[in-house]
Amino acid sequence: MTDNTFYTDESMQGQYKLFDLGDFVLEEDHETLRGAKLAYRTFGHLNQAKDNAVLVTTWFSGTGKIMEDVYIGANHALDPATYFIIVVDQIGSGTSSSPNNTPVPQSHARFPKVRIGDDVRAQHKLVTELFGIDSLALVVGGSMGGQQVYEWAVRYPSAVRRAAPIAATARISHHQVIFTQSLQEALTSDPNWNDGWYKAGTDVRTGMGRMAKIVANLGWSAEFYQEERWRTVLGMSSPTDFINGVMKAYFDPMDPNTLLAQIWKWQRADVSRHTGGDIAAALGRIEADTLVLPISHDLFFPPHEHSADHALIPNSELRVIESKEGHFALNGFEPNYMGQVDGHLRDLLAR
Amino acid sequence: MTDNTFYTDESMQGQYKLFDLGDFVLEEDHETLRGAKLAYRTFGHLNQAKDNAVLVTTWFSGTGKIMEDVYIGANHALDPATYFIIVVDQIGSGTSSSPNNTPVPQSHARFPKVRIGDDVRAQHKLVTELFGIDSLALVVGGSMGGQQVYEWAVRYPSAVRRAAPIAATARISHHQVIFTQSLQEALTSDPNWNDGWYKAGTDVRTGMGRMAKIVANLGWSAEFYQEERWRTVLGMSSPTDFINGVMKAYFDPMDPNTLLAQIWKWQRADVSRHTGGDIAAALGRIEADTLVLPISHDLFFPPHEHSADHALIPNSELRVIESKEGHFALNGFEPNYMGQVDGHLRDLLAR
Repeated sequence: MTDNTFYTDESMQGQYKLFDLGDFVLEEDHETLRGAKLAYRTFGHLNQAKDNAVLVTTWFSGTGKIMEDVYIGANHALDPATYFIIVVDQIGSGTSSSPNNTPVPQSHARFPKVRIGDDVRAQHKLVTELFGIDSLALVVGGSMGGQQVYEWAVRYPSAVRRAAPIAATARISHHQVIFTQSLQEALTSDPNWNDGWYKAGTDVRTGMGRMAKIVANLGWSAEFYQEERWRTVLGMSSPTDFINGVMKAYFDPMDPNTLLAQIWKWQRADVSRHTGGDIAAALGRIEADTLVLPISHDLFFPPHEHSADHALIPNSELRVIESKEGHFALNGFEPNYMGQVDGHLRDLLAR
Repeated sequence: MTDNTFYTDESMQGQYKLFDLGDFVLEEDHETLRGAKLAYRTFGHLNQAKDNAVLVTTWFSGTGKIMEDVYIGANHALDPATYFIIVVDQIGSGTSSSPNNTPVPQSHARFPKVRIGDDVRAQHKLVTELFGIDSLALVVGGSMGGQQVYEWAVRYPSAVRRAAPIAATARISHHQVIFTQSLQEALTSDPNWNDGWYKAGTDVRTGMGRMAKIVANLGWSAEFYQEERWRTVLGMSSPTDFINGVMKAYFDPMDPNTLLAQIWKWQRADVSRHTGGDIAAALGRIEADTLVLPISHDLFFPPHEHSADHALIPNSELRVIESKEGHFALNGFEPNYMGQVDGHLRDLLAR
């Protein structure tokens, strides 16, 4: 059984710290994740009033490393010279508590089911207990990170002054549930899957490869393919070169159980769990000044679904980020994308 | 080895005839499909001038039965009182020569590879030799049927007076190639697939079910799911009820090898094969008065890809069919869809 140590190695993930959550009781069946840990990294300094803290969350298959590399720096809205920026990896990411790094009896296929609400409660513990922060200047994240932003704003309304969910909805759509089931089935149908008790993640590469291709069906836009942006933006020589050299190569170092832990969570994100299924009531709770940021060509979380959320959030504004990459524009492959995000976040932070 | 006779039974497919193509040499490796047959049905009467003939083609997983039920009749533009309507099932459909009905040594997994060009040459043979028709008043079809329409208009420009490709493009997009590969992988990864030598199609239902779910990811629009049109339009009680009761139930009676034969063909449709890869030159050949008919919310063949084709066709008009069902609006579940199609086809036929 591999621990995929190369994935958590500093050369891939940069430097991060671990926050000890102790024995952490989860929402699903009240199972306890024992010795739970959150991976996090910070940038900049917390001021004396403790009112300059920004929380950055992470998406499916991502960690704080991509947020550090693409979203944070002197040339970005998230500038460590001004803000104390805390980036927290989601549970199941491979760095925070995950199937690949949790000791028996909760390792691998026995890793308990984790929900977005668990992540946000754990993050709240980190923010309040480790740093003594009661109020966040901004919570921002994309995709599953955006699902966490919504959970923060609904669960802890008074603790979130500004919220910026990017390419995410407050409640998972039926479309995404079906899509994510396709990902699960692609992976678990690998003959070496063995109910999650594969010897090494590399044994399940056939299923992982099928999954990577299905991700590519909706992760990038039709325009991305039509205009051969896999060539102009990503520098790949053909669609096959793109699938093998980008999509499969991206997922290859990851542990299949960790991806499934995240998918299970992704397909259940729903802030209306707080209000008996009433999404209007849930979003009506939000006190944060909220910037809803869809990506124009996103097939995962299309703009019209963001509009529906925006209409239900009291103090919110909708701004569409234009990018023909679709959902994966989030990775910042083209400079136009980050320019827009920085502009929107600067406006939000200035008010 | 099942012959899926229930699928070709009159109760499922209605009445159709078989046109004998004899030994038919295919484009791919010049393999000969021996004793090749085209399933067809006709409606109305051919006039003396032989200028009132309309050819209707079929899509992936469909046969002439759905075209007969939804597109043809006294209340439609394709009215047998005025037109002699020939509906031809594509090769590999399960009714025309297909893996499930072709004798050894070309049965099942040994069925030769067939291209859209083969279909259209076979159809041309039927139209000219059986009916003595030199010029078609209209060639119309949706999805893979639309791919055949384009092939007709480019291959036999003077034989096609009007063309109406619905929800189809003249050349398959990279996006669709990758998507259709996902379908193939879902099916052939079934442990009972056995390189196509399964005993009965029902043995491969796990892979078929995975495939059905992936089809559902792009076959219907995000709005279809968001607005719960699986409930209001299709009468299903939940997304799971929809996936099991519509998508899987639809594919269940079909033979896996026949679906793969069609997918192989689908992902290679490309009229620019006639012009050394020059799509502008290929579409420039079209003499037909052409109505390009995308469906507004289609994720298989999105409207912007139709616009690109339309711009290259000399005598063409683009009209978008509005439907939130997306690609599967083709099946005519909602009356608004056929009303629009009939309106457009009546306009085209009147000029």
